This record gives sequence, structure tokens and C-alpha cells, in this order.
Amino acid sequence: MPPTEINIGLLGAGVVGSGTLDVLWRRRERIAAAVGCPLEVRRVLVRDPGRPRPVAIPAGLLTTDPSAILEDPAIPIVVELMGGIEPAHGYIAAALRAGKHVVTANKDVIATYGYELFRLANDRGVNLFFEGSVGGGIPVVTTLRHGLVANQVGAIQAIINGTTNYILTAMEQDRDYADALREAQQLGYAEANPRNDVEGIDAAYKLAILSTLAFRSEVRPIDVRHFGITRLQAKDFRYAAEMGYVIKLIAASRLLDGQIEAGVYPALLPRTHHLASVKGVFNAILIDGDQIDTLMLYGRGAGAQPTASAVVADICTVARDLIRGVVDRIDLSGQPRPVVDFDDTESRYYIRMQVADQPGVLAQIARVLGDGRISIASVIQKETDETARSAELVIMTHAAQHRGVVAALEAIGHLAVVRDISNVLRVLR
Amino acid sequence: MPPTEINIGLLGAGVVGSGTLDVLWRRRERIAAAVGCPLEVRRVLVRDPGRPRPVAIPAGLLTTDPSAILEDPAIPIVVELMGGIEPAHGYIAAALRAGKHVVTANKDVIATYGYELFRLANDRGVNLFFEGSVGGGIPVVTTLRHGLVANQVGAIQAIINGTTNYILTAMEQDRDYADALREAQQLGYAEANPRNDVEGIDAAYKLAILSTLAFRSEVRPIDVRHFGITRLQAKDFRYAAEMGYVIKLIAASRLLDGQIEAGVYPALLPRTHHLASVKGVFNAILIDGDQIDTLMLYGRGAGAQPTASAVVADICTVARDLIRGVVDRIDLSGQPRPVVDFDDTESRYYIRMQVADQPGVLAQIARVLGDGRISIASVIQKETDETARSAELVIMTHAAQHRGVVAALEAIGHLAVVRDISNVLRVLR
Repeated sequence: MPPTEINIGLLGAGVVGSGTLDVLWRRRERIAAAVGCPLEVRRVLVRDPGRPRPVAIPAGLLTTDPSAILEDPAIPIVVELMGGIEPAHGYIAAALRAGKHVVTANKDVIATYGYELFRLANDRGVNLFFEGSVGGGIPVVTTLRHGLVANQVGAIQAIINGTTNYILTAMEQDRDYADALREAQQLGYAEANPRNDVEGIDAAYKLAILSTLAFRSEVRPIDVRHFGITRLQAKDFRYAAEMGYVIKLIAASRLLDGQIEAGVYPALLPRTHHLASVKGVFNAILIDGDQIDTLMLYGRGAGAQPTASAVVADICTVARDLIRGVVDRIDLSGQPRPVVDFDDTESRYYIRMQVADQPGVLAQIARVLGDGRISIASVIQKETDETARSAELVIMTHAAQHRGVVAALEAIGHLAVVRDISNVLRVLR
Repeated sequence: MPPTEINIGLLGAGVVGSGTLDVLWRRRERIAAAVGCPLEVRRVLVRDPGRPRPVAIPAGLLTTDPSAILEDPAIPIVVELMGGIEPAHGYIAAALRAGKHVVTANKDVIATYGYELFRLANDRGVNLFFEGSVGGGIPVVTTLRHGLVANQVGAIQAIINGTTNYILTAMEQDRDYADALREAQQLGYAEANPRNDVEGIDAAYKLAILSTLAFRSEVRPIDVRHFGITRLQAKDFRYAAEMGYVIKLIAASRLLDGQIEAGVYPALLPRTHHLASVKGVFNAILIDGDQIDTLMLYGRGAGAQPTASAVVADICTVARDLIRGVVDRIDLSGQPRPVVDFDDTESRYYIRMQVADQPGVLAQIARVLGDGRISIASVIQKETDETARSAELVIMTHAAQHRGVVAALEAIGHLAVVRDISNVLRVLR
């Protein structure tokens, strides 16, 4: 006999929380049919009950006391949509310890405390679902957890931050960074303090989650080196276009010789690359598996409705499991694999610098690169400022170790003929 | 206590069957970890035990007697990879009736007998999984069944036949149809008798499955009108390109005023359309949902390894459910919706015809279209054969009903000045 209803406690009623309530209420009958019984939102934890919200929440549901949810034995499913690490992490852990199932869209908590929480959930015999933590409405967590079980995943390349992709798409149209950022802020795509997005931190957290699932070995945010997009200029996009490339903020990880490489960085992608045509706030995740070859999942990576879609799908699965008395244990049987120091990883590089417009400059620079065993694939040199006798030099290298490139650029920066090293970007195939 | 092993009976050891055996054996330990106990292939039904296969199957496993699997109480999971409607359909039904769980990649059976088999599986309390029946390694069935539960899906547009997409991609490079088909045959992408693919039949079956899941109402292959690619010429691709379009074989369905529209047809897509850049044998499924907006899943839609990836993922889920004693019932609670007669559906159209190169021809044709309330969006007229005084006319219409376009073209075909109506294609946005 299925229960007559299943109670849900919601932590947080911001943008995604309100969107989730909206769907749970608007699709009530359909969800009941899918689950096997109706879902009832019993309590909603908020900071300020008086605050107006996108969806009208009956006052009787609101509470400012987390224990009204975490300690209510009549609530078997807790949905955490507060965001941020604490107190969300503490609440999730408390709910799991109390034997409650948890659905969350919190990338910070899952990226930082994922393994600890996975173990806790498995120990307590409860479900912990987190599809909404990466890629909004894109079902990438489920796909990695279950759909690709027959595969050895070899690599992930993703655009998983909509804010930066919006800015980069605008810059492709010759807009400058500050202007594109301002527009993203006006449209609500970027926050007043955009650091988390534009420095690649948000993407690094999401990549940590995806890599942990893909390679079945814990990858923490601290393992993912991140580089931002703030140094990019419209001219980088012009040079890239001239050579057949676009520039995207790429979150990439791969398995190489049994070790994991992971990083977030702006990169040149060939115009024919699957991720090259991902525009605006859209996200896309490209997964290489030894059985499927290439799989790409593309969609809206953020926003109330897409994220609520993922959260509600998770709630339905957890509720069905609850009725049937089963749990979808998180598979932690993967062999632990070391994460390589980013300095030891290899890539081709794009280097743009301002140099004195005089004979022998390129020779000096080429010598330093050669001493570092970095070989040059191509060079573009343009006179930029005749009166200052300054020229712009764009060098594309063959594959070289990050550490070596950093060291060579340090030495090149000391050359008298080099005025500024403006930008260093990875170049992907 | 989990069982010490779970026995599997495999029906069919062709390309996908052999690929599935290969993964089950090669990934044995990993699969056991994911499931909770090892999976044991107990019997493999084949027509000819002596035939050489891509994977070596111990002779003791082979049988030519279906009852050795269907009637063996020690085999709780049957994996059907024979293809074709009968005897596969009968075997699947027999397995379900015997209380066995079934995994299949058989699009013909699921498209034709899906609802009947779904009901049978639900009645018997067993699982019926079919991720491999559409889109090879692309997890579209799972996504539609579970990932999008919070959404009202409004439309699907898909490239789900790799053979035709390979041919059309070649034709985009100015190759003619016969030449491109021959190449596809040589590469093993097209069969000696390519009818099923090039007439859009294969895609219609797959669209029936996707639409049934998306709109939660039975859509049968017979409900899906299909048009093939055999009348396309390289010049159609040139005209399309001139106007900013590519040509793809599109499987499309949508919900309009509570009714379902579904069809498979070659169509002009704007070059910026998400499906326009899908090349070669790759597949892509674009899903519009009211919560997620747009979701695209892209990957290899056929082949032994990608399909085996989907089949093994299904086997693992079914085996986990079996251990836990639960079943993933197929939700058949959706409200039945009628499927609209394709003749009543609307689209913009591209019409290419050969006409006499003399004054007043366009006026005569325009009058017939006008009488049918079909308005012209643009015209390209080119002189093609000076001695025959023949010209080629390409007309793009505004949205018009299929029935009206067919009737108007019938009348236009009777005009003395019209030599041939060479091609009629839908034009999508």
C-alpha cells in the first residue's frame, strides 16, 4: 500500500526554491501519478517570512527554525535549495543523519563535501540526489551515475558557466569585456560582484562534481586550477577568428595514464569544435566514453525553471524509492586516482604580447621559448602603435607543459624588448 | 542478502548482441560493483551456432532453442537484441508473461507493440527497459521517462537516422545522391537495400517511441507520415545554401492545441538551427519542455558499442531493481491525445520545379497558389537550359496546410508551362 502522501521539507525559497514550489504545486497531479502518491510540501525554511516571493507561499508553511524540518519525523524528504556552503552543508548532514532523504542543487556543498556526504547517505541507507547542482536542467548527473556505467569515461569538456559564456559570446561580436559584463549584470545573468563566475570558480566547483562522477574518484574544488576571463580583450577574439578559432571558458578534465587532469581556463577552440557553437547563457557538456565515443548534453545551465526541473525529477525518484523502500546507493567502489598538478599538464598555447618594434625581437623571444623546449607553431605580428614603435605579437605554440610555459613567460617578461605579456590561453583541438 | 549472481539470457548475438557480451565480460567487476552482484550470461540464442562472431562465445552458452531461455526459471533477465518484429515480439511478450524482466534495443517492437508490452510488464510487475531502441548511446529514453517528469514537453525535433544524415552531409559537399548512398553502403552505414533508412521509415519508428514517451500518449508508427530523401539533388542543397539553409531528414513531433503532430521529412533548416551542425552518422534530439526550455542530446545513434552502452546501462538498472525487489513501472497515466492527420498540419514549403522559360509562367503558378491561399515568401528563378527554353523555379511559401500544398501542386502540375515538380520540402525555423 503506498502512503496517502509524502511530506517534503524545503530549505530555502529563493529563485530556485520558489521555482520548485511552483512546479510541485502546478504539476501536482502529474507528479502524484509518476510517484504513486501526492507530494505535500509541509514546511519551508526562510530567513524572512515577510519578504515577497515569486510564488505565494501559505504563511502556515513558512518557518525560520531549521529544526521544524530537520527534526520533524513526519518529513522524510528534505530539499535543500539555500545555496552557499554553511549552514546548508550542516543541514544536509543533519538530515541524512536523521535518516531523511535529501535532494539538493547546491554545487558548493556537493563539490566540497560530496564524498563525505555520499558515504553518510550510504551508511544511513538514504538517498542523496543532486542533479540540479550542475548544468541546471541538463540531466548530466544521472547520465554519469547510471547511463554511462558501461563506459570508461576518458574526458569531459564543458561550458558550465552561463554568465561567462554570455560575456564571451558578446565579446565575439567585438564588444569589450567591461561592456559585456555590464550587460550581463543588467540582464541578471551576472551578479554585482561577478568574481565567482568570471574567475572560473563556479565552473571549477561544477567540474569537481562532474569529474568525481566520471572518473569514480574524488576530485575536490582545490584540485581544479582555475583561470578567469577578465584579461580577455576583443582583439583576442579577432586574432582567434583570424586563425579559425573561438574563445570559450572551458572546464576540462581527463584521465591520462591513470591520473586525473582537471582545469578551468579560457581556451581557443577550433570553429568546428562541438562546444564552439554554444552561445549566450547555454551550457554544454561533452563526454568521451570508450563505448559511446562522444556524447553531448546541451541546454540551459541555470535559472529557476530549468534547475527546478532537475530538482523535481530528483524528488520524484527519491519519493518513488521511498514508497518502494529502496535506496539508490552511490557507487564509491571506484579506484582512487591521483589528480595531477596543473603545472605538469600539457597543452598548446596562444600568447599575446606587446613588444618593441625593432629588429631581432622575435629571435630573442624564440630563443627563450626554445631554451624551455617550447616550439612555436605560428606567429602573427602586427604593428600597433607607430609613434611608440610598439608591435603586437601573437605566438601559437605546439604542446608544452604549463610549468615550462609559465617559466618561459617569466623570462620573456624580463626581456627589455617586451613591454607586456597581455594574455596566455590554452588552445584545444 | 544480495544473490551471488544474476543470470541473463541473451536473444541474438549479432552486432549489438556481440557488443553487449563484450562489455558484460570486459567490465565484469565494475558492473558487479554497480549492481551489487556479478551478472552471468547463462544462455545465448542464435540461429547458427557455427557462425563466426566478433566476440568468442563459449559453445556451452549457445542455443538455438528459445525455450532454453524463456522457460528457464533460473534466468530472471532476458535481453532481446535480435531486431525485427517477429519472433522478437513474441519472445519479449513470452518473457514478460513468464515474470522475467526484459531489456531490448528493438525499435520495431517497441514502436509497434510498446503500449501493449508496457501494460503487460506493469501487470506482471516486471521491468521492460528499451534505452537502446532509439539513439544508440544517447540517454534519451531515460531522460524522457524520468528526467523531464516536471515538464510538459511541447516539441521534439530530431536527427535519428545516421544513414540518411551521412548521405545528406555528403550531398552538402556537392555529391549526388547515388554516389553518397554508394559510399554509405561501402562504409557499412547503409544496407544493400537502403529503403528502410532512405524512405524515413526507421526514423518514423523511432519518432513514434520518442513521441509516445514525450507526450505520454500512444503514437504508433502508422501515425507518423514519412517522406524520404531519394528525390533530393545536389542542386537542392545549393539553393538551400544560397538562402541560408541546410537540408536534413527531420523527425519532428509537437503538441498543438492538445493534439499531436508527427512526421519525418527532409527539411530546410536555418544554418543557425541546433540540428544544422549535426554531421555524418551522428544523431541529435532536441526537446522543448516548458521548464527546461531547450535540451539537446547529441551522440552516436547506432553501432555496436554505443548501443551496447545503453543496453548494459539498462541491464544494470534492471538487475539492481531485481536485487531490491522493486520495479520501475512505466507511467501510463497520461491523457490520451489524438494524432492529427499530417495533411492538416502546417509548414512553410520549398518547391523546386522545371518550367517553360516564357513570359507569364510565374503569374500562372502564383495564381494557383493564391487560389489555394498559399502565399509566396520568395522566388528564385534560373535559366537552366537555353535550347530547351526551360527554367528552374524555386518558391518558398509562408506557412500553409500540407493538404492545400499537395492540391495546389497537383493543379500546378497540370499547367502546360510546368514540365516537372522536382521537389517539395518543409522549411523549419
